[in-house]
Amino acid sequence: MKKIIVIGASGTIGKGIVEQLGLRHEVITVGRNSGQFQVKIEDPASVEALFKQVGKVDGVVVAAGDLHFGPLAEMTAEQFYVGLHSKLMGQVNVALAAQKYLNDGGSITLTSGSVSENPIRYGANASTVNRAVEGFVTGAAVEMPRGLRINVISPTLVDESVEAYGPYFYGMETVPVKRVALAYSRSVEGAENGKNYRVW
Amino acid sequence: MKKIIVIGASGTIGKGIVEQLGLRHEVITVGRNSGQFQVKIEDPASVEALFKQVGKVDGVVVAAGDLHFGPLAEMTAEQFYVGLHSKLMGQVNVALAAQKYLNDGGSITLTSGSVSENPIRYGANASTVNRAVEGFVTGAAVEMPRGLRINVISPTLVDESVEAYGPYFYGMETVPVKRVALAYSRSVEGAENGKNYRVW
Repeated sequence: MKKIIVIGASGTIGKGIVEQLGLRHEVITVGRNSGQFQVKIEDPASVEALFKQVGKVDGVVVAAGDLHFGPLAEMTAEQFYVGLHSKLMGQVNVALAAQKYLNDGGSITLTSGSVSENPIRYGANASTVNRAVEGFVTGAAVEMPRGLRINVISPTLVDESVEAYGPYFYGMETVPVKRVALAYSRSVEGAENGKNYRVW
Repeated sequence: MKKIIVIGASGTIGKGIVEQLGLRHEVITVGRNSGQFQVKIEDPASVEALFKQVGKVDGVVVAAGDLHFGPLAEMTAEQFYVGLHSKLMGQVNVALAAQKYLNDGGSITLTSGSVSENPIRYGANASTVNRAVEGFVTGAAVEMPRGLRINVISPTLVDESVEAYGPYFYGMETVPVKRVALAYSRSVEGAENGKNYRVW
């Protein structure tokens, strides 16, 4: 049994991750405003404080972070920074801190999204940020010490979010959260490092 | 004959681009402190001012932007933001502004780098930023109006930079700037959109 932090535990995908990992592990739920602990992933000090509170863990999972969606023709740098500050640097902040608080052989699992490779209208910020998270995992994986591993899950739109985001994704096959959650289990409980698990 | 802005014209790769495109086109050289015009790509207002001065163009090429290199174990958010502010948002700022100043059928060509897919020690920021630039091009390409195109060149280490950066890249085959410059010509003078030209 491992001790695993799940940041973004109350989200649509987060709930599936908690259910899947909870079958075999101690899961610590974390959210911006919910869960057992709170964190603002955009703020390195808040991330550090979270790990200081929770102590040593065997796995860190992040399924959180905001993006900007909107037409490229009108996009401003400020809007573009929404995704850079939140879904990109939020996850990077967690990974940088996690290096110090993970037990030997522990894992970090981040979240990108299929828009990284399958672009959609209004999705330039999402394609950029998701691909950046994947690049970070590629780069960080070769420097992981003590048998630590870092991977990324790239889910497509989940069935459970079709009502909210369907119109952005017409024509794309969706998958159940249950299937996405399996990829997180594979990252946490498997042996790979620097892997991008595409779920689509 | 096209009118083409080259930002980063005095760099190792920039000089090769200017030479190659200069064979057939009017090239406007731009740099932070050199060239016919100056720009600070990290500042959207400076980028806007550049385009206002230069007026309508047929092509915009960027071969500029800073990255942070250093060990992941000691990396801070502040260091990580070096690449996000400069090589990533610098190029995004140029692309967002260029949409308005390009003639119909014009092109935007950005620069990533092979570390996006071939990680090296101390290169987490470079892998992230280079992959992000490629993701931006993937995402932006589907929203290009008026026959505009956007592509990215991903060069490996060039022969001319082995003395400066060789130790980061032991074992990787290098290429002459001349070959990298051809990829920029292909992006500017070809017909593709959303393409990642890998030169390695």
